[in-house]
Amino acid sequence: MEEKERFVTEITPKSEDFSRWYTDVVRRAELADYTTVKGCMVIRPYGYATWEKVQECLDRRIKETGHQNAYFPMFIPESLLKKEAEHVEGFAPQVAWVTQGGDEQLEERLAIRPTSEAIICSMYSKWVRSWRDLPILINQWVNIVRWEKETRPFLRTREFLWQEGHTVHATEKEAEEETLKILEVYRDFIENDLAIPLIAGLKTESEKFAGALKTYAVEALMTDGKALQAGTSHHLGQHFAKAFDIKFEDKDQKMKYAWQTSWGVTTRLVGAIIMTHGDDSGLILPPKVAPIHVIIIPIPAAGWQKKVLPLVKEVERRLKGIELRVQADLREVYSPGWKFSEWEMRGVPLRLEIGMKEVAEKRAVAVRRDTGAKMLISLVDLEKEIPLLLAEIQNSLFKKAKKFLQDNTHTVDDYDKFKEIIKTKGGFIYSFWCGDPQCEQKIKEETTATIRALPLKPDHVPGGCVKCGRPSAQRVYFAKAY
Amino acid sequence: MEEKERFVTEITPKSEDFSRWYTDVVRRAELADYTTVKGCMVIRPYGYATWEKVQECLDRRIKETGHQNAYFPMFIPESLLKKEAEHVEGFAPQVAWVTQGGDEQLEERLAIRPTSEAIICSMYSKWVRSWRDLPILINQWVNIVRWEKETRPFLRTREFLWQEGHTVHATEKEAEEETLKILEVYRDFIENDLAIPLIAGLKTESEKFAGALKTYAVEALMTDGKALQAGTSHHLGQHFAKAFDIKFEDKDQKMKYAWQTSWGVTTRLVGAIIMTHGDDSGLILPPKVAPIHVIIIPIPAAGWQKKVLPLVKEVERRLKGIELRVQADLREVYSPGWKFSEWEMRGVPLRLEIGMKEVAEKRAVAVRRDTGAKMLISLVDLEKEIPLLLAEIQNSLFKKAKKFLQDNTHTVDDYDKFKEIIKTKGGFIYSFWCGDPQCEQKIKEETTATIRALPLKPDHVPGGCVKCGRPSAQRVYFAKAY
Repeated sequence: MEEKERFVTEITPKSEDFSRWYTDVVRRAELADYTTVKGCMVIRPYGYATWEKVQECLDRRIKETGHQNAYFPMFIPESLLKKEAEHVEGFAPQVAWVTQGGDEQLEERLAIRPTSEAIICSMYSKWVRSWRDLPILINQWVNIVRWEKETRPFLRTREFLWQEGHTVHATEKEAEEETLKILEVYRDFIENDLAIPLIAGLKTESEKFAGALKTYAVEALMTDGKALQAGTSHHLGQHFAKAFDIKFEDKDQKMKYAWQTSWGVTTRLVGAIIMTHGDDSGLILPPKVAPIHVIIIPIPAAGWQKKVLPLVKEVERRLKGIELRVQADLREVYSPGWKFSEWEMRGVPLRLEIGMKEVAEKRAVAVRRDTGAKMLISLVDLEKEIPLLLAEIQNSLFKKAKKFLQDNTHTVDDYDKFKEIIKTKGGFIYSFWCGDPQCEQKIKEETTATIRALPLKPDHVPGGCVKCGRPSAQRVYFAKAY
Repeated sequence: MEEKERFVTEITPKSEDFSRWYTDVVRRAELADYTTVKGCMVIRPYGYATWEKVQECLDRRIKETGHQNAYFPMFIPESLLKKEAEHVEGFAPQVAWVTQGGDEQLEERLAIRPTSEAIICSMYSKWVRSWRDLPILINQWVNIVRWEKETRPFLRTREFLWQEGHTVHATEKEAEEETLKILEVYRDFIENDLAIPLIAGLKTESEKFAGALKTYAVEALMTDGKALQAGTSHHLGQHFAKAFDIKFEDKDQKMKYAWQTSWGVTTRLVGAIIMTHGDDSGLILPPKVAPIHVIIIPIPAAGWQKKVLPLVKEVERRLKGIELRVQADLREVYSPGWKFSEWEMRGVPLRLEIGMKEVAEKRAVAVRRDTGAKMLISLVDLEKEIPLLLAEIQNSLFKKAKKFLQDNTHTVDDYDKFKEIIKTKGGFIYSFWCGDPQCEQKIKEETTATIRALPLKPDHVPGGCVKCGRPSAQRVYFAKAY
């Protein structure tokens, strides 16, 4: 038990070392663990249960907008991957290659999907014949491999999980509408379910997806001041349609190349949840994606099993009855105090304490994970009060994160100030940019900040580029990024 | 449309060529398609939606019995795979190997999981310290790769999807209980949700999982008379615990090796559904796993959009209101007759036809996919009658399949008759076997039949081995198998 007690309290303070704090939380809340396979992690049951909730929230939205799930092979023959020139150039350096199957040396090596455009487009070229076959709206939830050099659990691993949508449309306009529709699905889902506020925008040429016409993204701001790309939606234009010969006979009986989109979010969203909401005591999970909404902890005293235990079980049963995810921690080898710390570290939104006094007074002590606020809840009001409290926690987490985002978005016109902010406090810097990739590149080299997004709705107030002073049509968001 | 009409009717009759019938159904019901990657299939949206329902049914049961989902790396370093001798011997010939990552030639090649015992046990040896850490009850839903020579969609592909449970226990007894508990979970799930009757039993030494102490399985009988292994549950003994050093301090303060189990079912269950229930018109899906329970087809006539369409939408809305999966086929380019065939081919359990007459008489024509029986349903009774009909279809499919299994299970004491039955009608042959692997092997060579299962509850009536005549303790189930 001594070892276990240290375990709970042994999280490096966030203010002291953000990066160590992050890995401490990941490991001690048992979200993930390192493996003997370099750069690959195990997603442990508690982390995976969180990912399952994230999946449920998004999968529902993907289906509600008319998309269907499918499964395409993980292997992509090298010749297929090479068909779209920019695409292979962007991904080849990160590909893991299968060269042997059983005893057989493969004639053509197989890429493990770093993304699935190539294999999916090879099927779409078979399936698409007529305008009647369009649109095709398909998504898949799969594992992805990219041979990264530097890895960190959830944020960047050689193998990770994601969903990738791949759609085909008859016109450019429809493909653009789909791209923006999905961007809005992502924004709605990440802001409302994960309580992570976002900036949505367009990527620059240098930051867009390899093979895309344009890439839109939603960007979040972590509490260390670094931006995190939370989801991307690509308008692929006709690049892949031309490379893979995806053509259809239109209503006017002419053969035309199709227009496509692709879009994805990954298990790094779990990392974003940790870094947006967590504190020195560990994880804080937004109720909508918490595997456990409410942890009930009995406070033992003489005769507790006869008096307290039945009430604990009744409360558990009643809360399960209204579809809440609730668990009672009845382990006798641990003290209530130890349990408080453990479940705080694991980020359970709400704790209920029930002891002799609560039994006598027909109420429970409720403690919010996000604020630490304690309150008394009358047992008759349980089914009404607990859901209200959880909704309040969800809102409050979003508001707090939104305030942080706003407080750490700096409108800057001076390059020295730009550099100073990036160096000291970080955050988004909202500055004019002339549109020249050379300015973008120099800023990156000199400050490590990149352009995270061109705003979807620019102010249209012109000004001078923060780097070169030339006339610029709009401000853009810069930040150091994960 | 001509091409489309041919498409629907172009299913090879089942009696003419079972194997072609199977692949016709798979492709024309758009369950799966072939790809440019040899031996790998695409699971198309309709097939994947069926798999998602299968997953939901089983995942619920896995969680209800106390298991949690997780995700372990897909890559297994060769040295890990080699730790358990029988295991590597069994799987090495089927492994796909990654030898390059990006530009880097890997120092040690990585197996793509053919099953995950090795990588999971490497983590369990880290996680298990004390009896307090036990049992560990983990499952994962992942893709698997085995470099098969002969492949067929869903039944045997180089990449497939499955769930694999991996548990750790303090005692042999607990591990045995877990193995049998899961076998019962599989039986309950496959019989009740997939409507596929089973024989449950123990595998012989030659048929057991590479590395297991013993393997239990549930075996189904396809309508061509061949058996299909539908799920396996392995008691791993201490084989892996010793190879991977999974030890714990027990309550008596002694260090002990743990006992383990593993168990899985795969996407081949979709193949089992097709081959158990399908007929010459195509697929027949049991309601519990059908992506669409009810297809509503309007019968057009002059003015149908004003009179029929509103009723179609009302029926759709009302059935959705009681959580049924319902779809109205409003496409105007296809005739009702064409739609009837298409949705029959896709195996939708129930069709509702609504035309002018039905509007006038306030009812709908319901047609069962399994029997073709037509009936009239009064609209006021919709919410009551449709669920009853679906339950009736589910039961009826199981009963029919159960009768087929019983009719095709032959108690045989004569080897010539054994050979004749295997050669002509197939099915299970219930015969005495002396227990000698040589008899088992000879029977396999001479008849292609293998021992599918030693019954869980043997009759304990002794007799003479069907091959050698020596005294045998019990009858066992033989069959030709997929």
